Amino acid sequence: MNNTPIINKLNDIKNSEIISFHVPGHKNGKIFDRLGYSDFKNSIVNIDTTEIPGTDNLHSPEEIIKKSQDIASKVFKSDQTFFLVNGTTCGIQAAIMAVCSLKDKIIVNRDCHQSVINTCILGDIEPIYVTPKIDMSSGISLGVKLDDIKRLIEEDEGIKAVLITSPTYYGINTDIKSISDYLHKKNKILIVDEAHGSHIGLNDRLGMSAIEQGADISIQSTHKTLPCFTQASMIHIKSDRVDINRLKSFLRMVQSSSPSYMLMSSIEMAVEIYSKHGKELMEELIYNIDKTKDYIKKLKNIYLYNDKGNDITKMYIITKNLKRAGYEVEDIFRQKYNIQVELSNPYGVLLICSIGNDKDDFEKLRQALKYIDNEIGDEDLLESDYPNYIPKKALNPREAFYSNRKSIPIEDSIGKICAEYIIPYPPGISLLSPGEIITKEVIEYVQKWKKIGMNVTGMDDKNLDFIKIID
Amino acid sequence: MNNTPIINKLNDIKNSEIISFHVPGHKNGKIFDRLGYSDFKNSIVNIDTTEIPGTDNLHSPEEIIKKSQDIASKVFKSDQTFFLVNGTTCGIQAAIMAVCSLKDKIIVNRDCHQSVINTCILGDIEPIYVTPKIDMSSGISLGVKLDDIKRLIEEDEGIKAVLITSPTYYGINTDIKSISDYLHKKNKILIVDEAHGSHIGLNDRLGMSAIEQGADISIQSTHKTLPCFTQASMIHIKSDRVDINRLKSFLRMVQSSSPSYMLMSSIEMAVEIYSKHGKELMEELIYNIDKTKDYIKKLKNIYLYNDKGNDITKMYIITKNLKRAGYEVEDIFRQKYNIQVELSNPYGVLLICSIGNDKDDFEKLRQALKYIDNEIGDEDLLESDYPNYIPKKALNPREAFYSNRKSIPIEDSIGKICAEYIIPYPPGISLLSPGEIITKEVIEYVQKWKKIGMNVTGMDDKNLDFIKIID
Repeated sequence: MNNTPIINKLNDIKNSEIISFHVPGHKNGKIFDRLGYSDFKNSIVNIDTTEIPGTDNLHSPEEIIKKSQDIASKVFKSDQTFFLVNGTTCGIQAAIMAVCSLKDKIIVNRDCHQSVINTCILGDIEPIYVTPKIDMSSGISLGVKLDDIKRLIEEDEGIKAVLITSPTYYGINTDIKSISDYLHKKNKILIVDEAHGSHIGLNDRLGMSAIEQGADISIQSTHKTLPCFTQASMIHIKSDRVDINRLKSFLRMVQSSSPSYMLMSSIEMAVEIYSKHGKELMEELIYNIDKTKDYIKKLKNIYLYNDKGNDITKMYIITKNLKRAGYEVEDIFRQKYNIQVELSNPYGVLLICSIGNDKDDFEKLRQALKYIDNEIGDEDLLESDYPNYIPKKALNPREAFYSNRKSIPIEDSIGKICAEYIIPYPPGISLLSPGEIITKEVIEYVQKWKKIGMNVTGMDDKNLDFIKIID
Repeated sequence: MNNTPIINKLNDIKNSEIISFHVPGHKNGKIFDRLGYSDFKNSIVNIDTTEIPGTDNLHSPEEIIKKSQDIASKVFKSDQTFFLVNGTTCGIQAAIMAVCSLKDKIIVNRDCHQSVINTCILGDIEPIYVTPKIDMSSGISLGVKLDDIKRLIEEDEGIKAVLITSPTYYGINTDIKSISDYLHKKNKILIVDEAHGSHIGLNDRLGMSAIEQGADISIQSTHKTLPCFTQASMIHIKSDRVDINRLKSFLRMVQSSSPSYMLMSSIEMAVEIYSKHGKELMEELIYNIDKTKDYIKKLKNIYLYNDKGNDITKMYIITKNLKRAGYEVEDIFRQKYNIQVELSNPYGVLLICSIGNDKDDFEKLRQALKYIDNEIGDEDLLESDYPNYIPKKALNPREAFYSNRKSIPIEDSIGKICAEYIIPYPPGISLLSPGEIITKEVIEYVQKWKKIGMNVTGMDDKNLDFIKIID
């Protein structure tokens, strides 16, 4: 036996042939075989090379990487597209810092990815939060409204840009078009964190991509919903308001100077599949999803979160009528049906479907759903008391991050200035960020829900007994 | 034909079975087959997954990633080791920002990797340069001296830490032991950019690793000289002076929140091969290198750069007696013998040998060397006039980076404040950094040597006709 715990475990998982309703979008590599790209899949290590004559330099592309990025740009209807090998994380970093200078202000949705706040720390930028509505019956964010953004900008015309997550993890779309129209009249820049929406352009029923709706910049986690390797993303620019050279400088900063050709090749492969087979595969996928949704409608207990106007490839199945937290239901899926969902929360489970899923996956899913629909538990599920407000800010993220910190018992921390993040994960939305005043509600919320199974990250003490505050 | 320029070209390169004396260390995947790890190599895409039950979270590891990092830590003799999926770049960023707060000063060798200066920009840190000696006959840096560091620290006791590149790209070792002994007496921290030295522990003739010599932190590009995929690195800590939690916070910032299991697995595989087969393979490699070096000694024109005390796995072959620039010699290697070297410069070519190279590679290499030794050209090679001084600083890197910039003809730029980098690549050492006064010598140097074939990056205008200055 090799002394390789990661590889051993991943091989076990591979051999158990789990049906994937989670990311990455290639679903255990299956789609490459199905479409005749097995060679690409099987010889990927042999093409793991570096900058030698014939290859190119991601940070200053002139040959094959440039060509490939230009193809992607055409397919995704941007002015310019760059491949990212450090995930959407690095695209968000480069986008925000390219657009905001030191001390600049940017409006961001409160449920933004933590990389957004990290960028504000690195770039000395002030985030102005816009709060989304929360659906208390299912615990999810419903996106932000134009009016709230308008109000913030009218209060402070100095705001430089706006960053919006759309679609969300759960597939909730924000009306990017009306926001971009408004912002462009004000000559402000719109960045869309489109991590969960790389596949949007493949069918009219998915709506329009952020770029098509007028976003100046969008960053997509190609790996999440297209056949691409984890950690490979793209940033698209369609704007005359963005300084491309400045953006490039930041992209050089936030990405390895030894970028992986395996990751870059997989982006190219995703673009190839998107443009050659994407629409057809998406038709097929939507057919399978519709069929499954119709099936769910006939079930007694479980039901689908109403997704009108949202991304239909994300199926958020509400399981609370079973008297079971979604965490338990996730276990049943995996243990009894060898199906892995993307995530679970107290109210249900989220399935991410991609063009990498086939008919058989959905058949198995329907079998599982039928079984689960009768698996009544006896848990008295708590109603959500999600603390949907923005804690008072004492310090900017950067000031807070660079202050002296000390660790104290969490029950003594109310009213103190938080020096850490508190992030229920997934979906990785920060309830408290460095520099904000710790409130009773947030502490009680995470302590209570952690007991039920919620995974909370961002804090050094994994038991949540101690919290770091500003000294 | 697929519309995939990157994949098509990489397949061509793969099919031409180039003999690799360049990075990555796995040499086109050959070593995995040789050691019986073909399964790992061939099914790597199938194990590209994400955080699901059974796997782990790189940013908060508790299971397989933690176990694997602990194994690596033992093998590389650190207190703690973290896997890096955004290259040594992100390890350098996290290390420097973990150790230096805003406005802190750090001593760095002038020929540091550009990620060091980028980190000073992001973290608002002031770099204090220590100049290495340059060997004018071969154009390379000879590393820094303890006395120069001592002098700088005696001038300014406020300096927080020191960062040294060792070994260099060309394999030049710095005496880390004496520098760490001195710094620790002063209670200062030593970070070693050991990107080129992951293999150092495998044989006594390679010396001791930075961690063994007392470095507080070392960052290794595992992919460069061990069998690991490009972009995968490790950071090792052995120190009670480093705040590990602070380091972890920065590691979370500078790496994707969707880290690649392919990259992490390949680090684990490199550690496995290092500990199980490493010493034996290194014996074999050194035998092949010694034999080739003896062979070179008998040749008429080409000779090896004297590498006493340095990393013998890097062969720097001086070709100037052929009256040919190294660039031309690199072409002969590739065109006539299907051998790809790591890099070339006016004086010669650099070969990076790893335990992934076998006997056949060296036989082919000797054949090539014999041929090349008689390939006399007619170029009057220029003597080096490498401008080995530090241009005057007008602004800190961060101030410069965030100032207004404008583009002017390069010939009008002398005396102005530079707003870009000028980096001959490889090896990627900055001649001018943002905030420094542009000198005639530097401009003349890069213009002259670019004509001979030197690749210069960091500037927006690839033709070097225009340069960005602070407005």
